[in-house]
Amino acid sequence: MTGAVDEVVADRYPTRSSVRVGIEPRHDPVVWVRDDRGGPLAGDDVDRFDCDGFLTVESLLAPDIVADLRAELDRLRSDPVLAADERSISERDSGQIRSIFEVHRISTAFAALIADPRLVGTARQLLGSEVYVHQSRVNFKPGFNGREFYWHSDFETWHAEDGMPTPRAVSVSVALTENLDSNGSLLIMPGSHRWFVSCPGETPPEHYRSSLQQQVIGTPDDASLTHLADQHGIRQITGPAGSAVFFDSNCMHGSGSNITPYSRSNVFIVYNSVENTLVAPFGAAAPRPTFIASRTFDPV
Amino acid sequence: MTGAVDEVVADRYPTRSSVRVGIEPRHDPVVWVRDDRGGPLAGDDVDRFDCDGFLTVESLLAPDIVADLRAELDRLRSDPVLAADERSISERDSGQIRSIFEVHRISTAFAALIADPRLVGTARQLLGSEVYVHQSRVNFKPGFNGREFYWHSDFETWHAEDGMPTPRAVSVSVALTENLDSNGSLLIMPGSHRWFVSCPGETPPEHYRSSLQQQVIGTPDDASLTHLADQHGIRQITGPAGSAVFFDSNCMHGSGSNITPYSRSNVFIVYNSVENTLVAPFGAAAPRPTFIASRTFDPV
Repeated sequence: MTGAVDEVVADRYPTRSSVRVGIEPRHDPVVWVRDDRGGPLAGDDVDRFDCDGFLTVESLLAPDIVADLRAELDRLRSDPVLAADERSISERDSGQIRSIFEVHRISTAFAALIADPRLVGTARQLLGSEVYVHQSRVNFKPGFNGREFYWHSDFETWHAEDGMPTPRAVSVSVALTENLDSNGSLLIMPGSHRWFVSCPGETPPEHYRSSLQQQVIGTPDDASLTHLADQHGIRQITGPAGSAVFFDSNCMHGSGSNITPYSRSNVFIVYNSVENTLVAPFGAAAPRPTFIASRTFDPV
Repeated sequence: MTGAVDEVVADRYPTRSSVRVGIEPRHDPVVWVRDDRGGPLAGDDVDRFDCDGFLTVESLLAPDIVADLRAELDRLRSDPVLAADERSISERDSGQIRSIFEVHRISTAFAALIADPRLVGTARQLLGSEVYVHQSRVNFKPGFNGREFYWHSDFETWHAEDGMPTPRAVSVSVALTENLDSNGSLLIMPGSHRWFVSCPGETPPEHYRSSLQQQVIGTPDDASLTHLADQHGIRQITGPAGSAVFFDSNCMHGSGSNITPYSRSNVFIVYNSVENTLVAPFGAAAPRPTFIASRTFDPV
């Protein structure tokens, strides 16, 4: 199954224009089917995800699996062939590797992880359909000089730049190192997934080449962020290696810099519903490369 | 009383050379006199300061005093005459005011604060002598794009660039806004004050002009920071407006960036012992301006 880029789909989440900036209610559900399909999550956990837009799991992966994935990550980061690959993204200042995309196609260890029932089963349960991998990557926030990720909704970017019609996608971030309160852990605004923040500015051509290093276009205006933070607060997600957080594609999130000596690595997988496959971008001239936004939609 | 810049004093804390980099034990006490002079701190608190190198006080200032000082800070930050004064330091990127130095000479409200017995009395008690104000400033870390302060020991800079002979100085930082776990609050390594980290690199002329925006020279090497963090851990100091932290001049500390909408302001006062007045800099060609490092040593 591949994407029909020229398909016409109504844009219910307009963004990246000079006209419209602000906060709109979300038009779509968060949990798409409430019957019990035997997914991994208990009803209370589904309710919490629905309410907060995210759910933390203290120990999703056992220590030996985490150790294997970290060793694999170290191998990938020191692979000179991969360093020259467009799927490797470097820090703007230091040149250190910041992310490696499509990691489930690069590594059998990460390929096994995306098919793990605790991950993909949760995505199916929340989205009420079969799912495919929209994006996978490992993120590496180095110690001493790890840069921040500014506030953003992933869905805003995926809608504008990739042509994802609705926020019927769920991400999971699995910690491969400890997330401390001091080393630039994920900041998230609980409940923010209920609002769509239209972002100012037109998307420049090949925007992803700079935005994956530091995003400027596609970031919310100060007034919208202040409103959301005042309404919903900010939660910092900490936890040991092996812990995970599932989060809705439209959560407002970001992370601060990391000056501690402790680097922070995680693997990030996006499951999208097979009923929500990509069309033409809603806010960009051309879709991003398929290593960032898959245009094959084969169910996991 | 003014400083004898040409006085010869042995350098027991060498730094800023290409030869010597690493960690040395501190040669001086932290608490200088242990008899009870009737200072504000209880014996347990003195012991904690001695051990950790810092002491937090949950509510040092009453809410109405905090409100007055915040209003005064807002007035200072919007004063165009002061914005053009060399004592105002701006953020490198945005041009927003980051710090205002010598604030106790600019503002009667802040002048009253430095003479408050809860502040100056604590300094006298810990340092075992009369004290004078080596430096005062207000720091303003804006929301959305507040930059980090990298790891440093204040004493390392004051010794190298100002000619402070020994770490017989204590700082107090009073929060004028809430310090959250997410808005770039102070990070400190408890117990690190017992070690002096000699820093690589020679001090360039007029170094303060860049270092007050972002410090590069006079920052510890990665190996020393990793050793200290592994040994001592990292504590993040959070608390409401009006809370305070007293800390030894040689604590290793820093803070991450602030992407939240919540700006973070504090007033920072350094009390130095009148028995530890400045001489010629130990690691720079000329002393820094007196608005950064006072060369009048009149007791408070």
